Amino acid sequence: MGTYAPGRFRALTWHDAAPAFRDGTDTPRAWLERCLETIAAREPVVRAWVVRNEAGARAVADASTARWRAGRPLSPIDGMPVGIKDLLETRDMPTEMGCVGYKGNFPRRDNAAVTALRAAGAVVLGKTVTTELGGAHPGPTTNPFDPGRTPGGSSSGSAAAVAARMVPAAIGTQVGGSIIRPAAYCGNVALKPSQGAINRGERQATSQSTHGVHAGCIEDMWLVAVAIASRVGGDPGRAPLSGPAAPPAARRPERLVVMETEGWAELDAASRAAFGALLARLEAAGVTLVRRGDHPLVERFEQGIAEGRSICGAVTAWENRWNTRNLLDQNPDGISARAKAVLARAEAMTVGDYQAALAMREEAQARHARIAPLADAVIALACPGPAPLWNGETDTPRPTGDIAFNAPSSMLFAPAVTVPLLAVDGMPVGVQVMAQPGQDAGAAAIARWLQDSGK
Amino acid sequence: MGTYAPGRFRALTWHDAAPAFRDGTDTPRAWLERCLETIAAREPVVRAWVVRNEAGARAVADASTARWRAGRPLSPIDGMPVGIKDLLETRDMPTEMGCVGYKGNFPRRDNAAVTALRAAGAVVLGKTVTTELGGAHPGPTTNPFDPGRTPGGSSSGSAAAVAARMVPAAIGTQVGGSIIRPAAYCGNVALKPSQGAINRGERQATSQSTHGVHAGCIEDMWLVAVAIASRVGGDPGRAPLSGPAAPPAARRPERLVVMETEGWAELDAASRAAFGALLARLEAAGVTLVRRGDHPLVERFEQGIAEGRSICGAVTAWENRWNTRNLLDQNPDGISARAKAVLARAEAMTVGDYQAALAMREEAQARHARIAPLADAVIALACPGPAPLWNGETDTPRPTGDIAFNAPSSMLFAPAVTVPLLAVDGMPVGVQVMAQPGQDAGAAAIARWLQDSGK
Repeated sequence: MGTYAPGRFRALTWHDAAPAFRDGTDTPRAWLERCLETIAAREPVVRAWVVRNEAGARAVADASTARWRAGRPLSPIDGMPVGIKDLLETRDMPTEMGCVGYKGNFPRRDNAAVTALRAAGAVVLGKTVTTELGGAHPGPTTNPFDPGRTPGGSSSGSAAAVAARMVPAAIGTQVGGSIIRPAAYCGNVALKPSQGAINRGERQATSQSTHGVHAGCIEDMWLVAVAIASRVGGDPGRAPLSGPAAPPAARRPERLVVMETEGWAELDAASRAAFGALLARLEAAGVTLVRRGDHPLVERFEQGIAEGRSICGAVTAWENRWNTRNLLDQNPDGISARAKAVLARAEAMTVGDYQAALAMREEAQARHARIAPLADAVIALACPGPAPLWNGETDTPRPTGDIAFNAPSSMLFAPAVTVPLLAVDGMPVGVQVMAQPGQDAGAAAIARWLQDSGK
Repeated sequence: MGTYAPGRFRALTWHDAAPAFRDGTDTPRAWLERCLETIAAREPVVRAWVVRNEAGARAVADASTARWRAGRPLSPIDGMPVGIKDLLETRDMPTEMGCVGYKGNFPRRDNAAVTALRAAGAVVLGKTVTTELGGAHPGPTTNPFDPGRTPGGSSSGSAAAVAARMVPAAIGTQVGGSIIRPAAYCGNVALKPSQGAINRGERQATSQSTHGVHAGCIEDMWLVAVAIASRVGGDPGRAPLSGPAAPPAARRPERLVVMETEGWAELDAASRAAFGALLARLEAAGVTLVRRGDHPLVERFEQGIAEGRSICGAVTAWENRWNTRNLLDQNPDGISARAKAVLARAEAMTVGDYQAALAMREEAQARHARIAPLADAVIALACPGPAPLWNGETDTPRPTGDIAFNAPSSMLFAPAVTVPLLAVDGMPVGVQVMAQPGQDAGAAAIARWLQDSGK
């Protein structure tokens, strides 16, 4: 049994601190010190961080304190302490990607998103643990609500740091389920944006990866996403995140498509029941639900994503093939046996195999577009029940959990926002709102309504 | 006056060597030695190479010789010596990108295209000179037909090495005009493929760059492009180069749209006359020409590309902004004053400025799509007249020439093939065939007809 109860847990939030910064009753420097105290208390068990630049963070927080005092903050997140997943380059800290082959890697460059966060005045506090290269091989991080369970992956440290109230927000990345699933296991809010909506900087090698945001509430999540996208835009050639500069107002949806995914059949009874009860509350609140049995287009949509896990796996394995091969050629012990097995599968693929996987992805995207007129958004579980028990061994089959509920938004290039609405076995279980590509603000508005109404 | 005459110059060709390799009257090793002799003779003036791995090349050529003897070549380009533009990573040679800040950079990785070439048995002979980071700041390379002129850029060394008969083919890259223009100035054939059609490996940071091929003839150009795309595919999420494994057969077009571009008004009289005479010969051969005055959609198309130079410049400057800033932060003397000026312009741009440039690009693409029914392809000059005189100074305004005739294919994501059909002042002037995105083979087939008929 974990220690989580959705009504009782109070996430760390930033957006409501501005008045105190302005009138001097609180300061970004004092805020940072409280974060560092929490880290000192909880990090020995949670193990969310690879490295922190605390001296640098204090200097930035002091500068921010002066700006707030002068009434001239650089942005609403000026002074906000944030964690950066250790896949993204940072000029002041190494970037080791959870991978032996990158031990000591220190390129002294800032990822575009990190550049933007610094320009907005945010305090880049440290690098958070990632699974090896963002894959399935886990790091040391544990779930803040039960150290005997995984925090999820691959954004393990970002999810856990936010859940443990160490920082109000952290940057994650997702190619399969790596933002939304750990957020859902850890009781965070999180945004996996539309494909291309946040500039990935040097990390452009895969076609369905995104940078995203873990936070304690929708408001902070949105402020961080906008702070980045408004400064460095989207990926090359792609439209940046669109929507208001302020967090979107809560919006009750008229209609929601209920998405099952291939994970539904494998789901535990308690999680099914909890999600069913949520849906009943939504219907009682006047929301019309459109299920797969209600409309043939929803059924076709479910069929289009029914092999989402294997499509995501094939696409990404192929796209990572050159990088991984180069790494292995330089250092035969530089990657795990698990990563070697993925590479072997990728190297057995032909260009035609890859094209077939892309074709399945494109067809699923077309089926998703066709359900747009049926509802305001899609609702689904954000993870397959509570975080699995995990004893710290690296060779269990899926140590950080399964991507079944997250493969859809990844392969559909669709924005997804998870909200911590459910609890099973004393552990958080997230619920996600997924919208059409480009409708990030719409997904956030509905997610905010769910958050505020505590549905 | 240069030394080039289109009828007299004999390019180095590879595809016709296979019978001699099979019957043992020639070998890839002997072929390589002849290349090295040419390099020894001409490199002191041409300066096409940054570095060569001659020992490695000889070993690969020997292995290839054995495979041909055994009747088991890995591909039609098994044993072919190729040059690699020094922007692409190679595991056995440094990658310095023509940039002080990358001096000594030696990541010991192979770009995806290099991996493919090695897998096809090609001899990766060395790295060819690029302008600084593929921009306008020139390297030391001179034009093989007149050392007092530029070879063009940014693929300066790849173009010059092929033109000097040092290698039958070389890899270039283009974001504005960096494959087609130097090829056209140097009398090469070259392919700038459809956007995304050849996997750029680690070089994914810009939305309109491509890898392409310089060669002595259409046949070799196509064999190299297919050898890469059939092994490593296209960019992440993009369709690879499509078309036959063998070089497309020559095809006489029924109709061609004549594209002027913003370069037409600035063009010298001799180049105008030479292109006009070519068009007259095409009409005499039964090809219907559709000019901007003949159809309102062609006029609208020309208007859509009329600011191609500035659109390409804005898009690419923005997309390179993070990389260049990181480089400059690490080494204040690491980039040229010219590159610093480009960075300053990029850093003055907002996300909105970038979006506006993308919008202009998308509208031009739509206008290009609308002329598809009017003709089989587009024909245009591939460079603004003969290669400009250049005295080796780096601070002349456009030391490697102007992108006016090349910005269109770059921003339209369209395949372009240049053929050395004209001569002005004893210098080559290329003519390009541009097709709709994905129609690379169609462009190559028409270009082959132009090549074979000597139009």
